Amino acid sequence: MARHEYPELNLPARVLLSTGPTNVHPRVYKAMQTPVIGYAEAAFFPVIDGISSMLAEVFQTRESRTMALSATGSAGVEAGLASLLEPGDTAVIGSYGFFCERMAETARRLGANVVTVKGEWARPLDPQALADELKKHKSVKLVAMVHAETSTGISQPLEDASRMAKEHDALFLVDAVTSLGGSEIAVDRWGIDYISSGSQKCLSCPPGLAPLALSPKALNAMNGRSSPPATFYMDLSLIANYWGGDRAYHHTPPTSSLYALYEGLRIVLEEGLEPRFARHRRNAAALRAGLEALGLTVISHKDHRLPQITPVAIPDGVDDARVRARLAADYGIEISRGLGQFAGKIWRIGLMGEASAAGNLLLFLSALEEILPQEGFEAPAGAGVAAASKALATP
Amino acid sequence: MARHEYPELNLPARVLLSTGPTNVHPRVYKAMQTPVIGYAEAAFFPVIDGISSMLAEVFQTRESRTMALSATGSAGVEAGLASLLEPGDTAVIGSYGFFCERMAETARRLGANVVTVKGEWARPLDPQALADELKKHKSVKLVAMVHAETSTGISQPLEDASRMAKEHDALFLVDAVTSLGGSEIAVDRWGIDYISSGSQKCLSCPPGLAPLALSPKALNAMNGRSSPPATFYMDLSLIANYWGGDRAYHHTPPTSSLYALYEGLRIVLEEGLEPRFARHRRNAAALRAGLEALGLTVISHKDHRLPQITPVAIPDGVDDARVRARLAADYGIEISRGLGQFAGKIWRIGLMGEASAAGNLLLFLSALEEILPQEGFEAPAGAGVAAASKALATP
Repeated sequence: MARHEYPELNLPARVLLSTGPTNVHPRVYKAMQTPVIGYAEAAFFPVIDGISSMLAEVFQTRESRTMALSATGSAGVEAGLASLLEPGDTAVIGSYGFFCERMAETARRLGANVVTVKGEWARPLDPQALADELKKHKSVKLVAMVHAETSTGISQPLEDASRMAKEHDALFLVDAVTSLGGSEIAVDRWGIDYISSGSQKCLSCPPGLAPLALSPKALNAMNGRSSPPATFYMDLSLIANYWGGDRAYHHTPPTSSLYALYEGLRIVLEEGLEPRFARHRRNAAALRAGLEALGLTVISHKDHRLPQITPVAIPDGVDDARVRARLAADYGIEISRGLGQFAGKIWRIGLMGEASAAGNLLLFLSALEEILPQEGFEAPAGAGVAAASKALATP
Repeated sequence: MARHEYPELNLPARVLLSTGPTNVHPRVYKAMQTPVIGYAEAAFFPVIDGISSMLAEVFQTRESRTMALSATGSAGVEAGLASLLEPGDTAVIGSYGFFCERMAETARRLGANVVTVKGEWARPLDPQALADELKKHKSVKLVAMVHAETSTGISQPLEDASRMAKEHDALFLVDAVTSLGGSEIAVDRWGIDYISSGSQKCLSCPPGLAPLALSPKALNAMNGRSSPPATFYMDLSLIANYWGGDRAYHHTPPTSSLYALYEGLRIVLEEGLEPRFARHRRNAAALRAGLEALGLTVISHKDHRLPQITPVAIPDGVDDARVRARLAADYGIEISRGLGQFAGKIWRIGLMGEASAAGNLLLFLSALEEILPQEGFEAPAGAGVAAASKALATP
C-alpha cells in the first residue's frame, strides 16, 4: 500500500451559494462529534423523538407522522412514490422543471401510469391545466407537484392543486427538497398527504437524510396496498414502525447524520420559522436588486420567485464554466450551473439556510463586478453592491 | 416553540460490542469536521477517487468498479438486486439466516422468481444443496449469498457458489455488510460480480454508506436491461456515471459521510489488511475462550465462525433484556439481541473495527462474571478473563 497516494483530507472552505449542499452551522459540525451509539438503545430514542417533533413544527403539522429517511433528498421523493403507487395506478404530475421531470421518471419506473401536466420552465403551473387534465381521468391515485423547482427558481403554489386532488379522491404528494426551513410549508392547512425534503438545503445540515411527513390518509393507503412496494429499504410503512413507537428493526440509520439533523432543527426553531423565512426573502430580494443593477436578468416569473434559488441569465458571450471556476478559485464561492433545457444558459445562485446572509451576497456581487467586465460584459462598477446594500437597509 | 423540549444532545459514550454501529475512530470524527463543499467541484473529486481506489484495495479487485451508495448497508444489497434483476428473472438465494431471508424478500418485491436454498441457521450452506437446486433450472440470472451472516455468526465460504454460478452463466452477488475490513474478501479471485457492505461495521465509520464493487459482467448486465430498474435512486448504472469519469449529476451524495469513509479506509490500509484480519481473529478467539470458560455456549459451527460476531446461547432462566440493560447502564457496553428464530435465545457479541480490542473483550467478560451470578447463572469468578488473557498471550 502506497500510503502517500491517500493524503489527509485538505479541502478548501467555500461560501456555498450553489443549489446545495449549503454551509453547515458550526453547532451542527459539533453535534456530529457526539459518540455514535446503537439505534436500539433507549438512550438513542430522544434523538429520534426530538427530530420527529421538531419536524412536525417545521412542517406545521399535528396530523402527519414525521421522520427522516436514511438517504438523500431524491430518495425521499422516490420513497413516497414507491410506497403510495402500485403498478398501473394513475399519477398526475405537474411538469415545469428538471425535478418535475425526474419525479415523473421515478414514478414511471415504478410501473405507474404517469400523466404529466406540462407548464413552462421558470413559470408556475397554471392550476387550470391541472384541472383540465384531472377531468379526463376516472381514477387518479396521486397528484404530485414540486414546491420549490430548483432548476428554474420557481415557488409553486400548492393549495389549488391540493383541493383538486381531494376532489378526485387522490393523494397529494409534494417535493419540498429545497423549500423546507426557508419558506412556509403548512402540511395540515394545505392538505398534503406526503412531503419530503433534504437535510442539505435550508436546514444547513450535511446531505444524507430526507425529512418527510406522512398523513393518516397516506399511511392508510400504504397499509391497504394489494402488494408490497418494489423497495424494501424505502418502504415507508416499515420505516414508520421504527420511528413511531415499537422501534422495530428495519435498517441501521445514519447515526451521525441524525445528530446533525437534530441540532440543525434546534437552530431553525431557535431562530423561529417566520423570522427565518423573512431572512431568506430579504436576502433574495437584495441579491436580485444587485444582479439587476449590474444589468443581469433574473429569469423566474416575478410573482413566483423562490427566495432559495435565483436563476440568472448568462450574458451573451460570457463563458459559463470559466466564470464559475474563477468564483471558486479567486473568491471561494460556489454557484450552480443550469440543468436540462437551461444548461449553459443560466447560473443558479442559492441563498439557503446559513448561507442566506448579507455578507455572502455582497461578496458575491462584488466578485461579479470584478469578473464580468474581464469576461466581456460591462457591468457598472459598484452598482450591484450599492443596490443590494440599499435593499438590505430598506425595512 | 418551547425550546427546553429539545435540549442539546448529551448521549453516553458506549463500548459498542453490538452488531453495529461500531466505535468510530477519533480520526474519523475529525475528518467529519472537514467543510462541506459541492459534489460537482473539482476540489471534491479526490475524495471520490480516493474512496474508489482504497475500496478497490480492500475488496482486492482490479477489475471491478468500486464506489459507495448514498444509503446504509441494506440499501447496498437492494441496489445490486434492483439493478441486476428484471421482473421474472430467476434468482437462487442461499438461506441460512435472517439477512439471507431479507435478501430473498427484497428480490421477491422486485418481481424476481426467487428460489431459496435452505440451510440450517448457525451452519454454513452445503454447496451440494446449491448444486442440486441449480440443476433444476434452465436459466438462472443470479446466485446470491450472504458472506457474514450477522444473525448467526457464520462465515459462508463463497468459492464453490461462485464457480457454480458461472457454470450456469449466472451473476454472483454477495452481501458483505459485516465482513468488509474484518476478514478477507477477494472479489477478483473469488469471481464476485456484485458485492456490497456497510460503513458502520469493520470500517468503523458512522452508518450511512454502502461501499460496493461491480464487475464488468455486472455492468454489462445493467446496461443490457430490457427496461430500467424500478428504482431511480439506487440505479447503479447511473451512480457509476458519477463515480467513474463523467461526474454526471444523479443526486447529492452525503458529503460528511464520504469524508468519514475516506478517513476510515486510510486507517484500514495503514494497519494493513492481513494484520487487521489477524487482529479480528485473535480477539474473537479470546472472547470465545472466555465465554466457554464461563460455561457459556457459542452456537455457531466451530469451523465457520465469524470473527466479527460471536453468537452465544442465553443460559436457561437468565433474563435476556435485563442483562443487556445492565451491561449498558453499569458498564457502558452494548451487545445485540437475537433476531428471527434466535430472538430471546442468543446474544450476539460484536468485535469489529475499532471495537475489536483486547481491552473491550476483557471488560465485557469481567462484566459478565459480575452480572451472571446475580441473574442466576453460576459463572466461575475470574475464569472468563483468565482464559481470554491466556488466549491473547498465545502467539
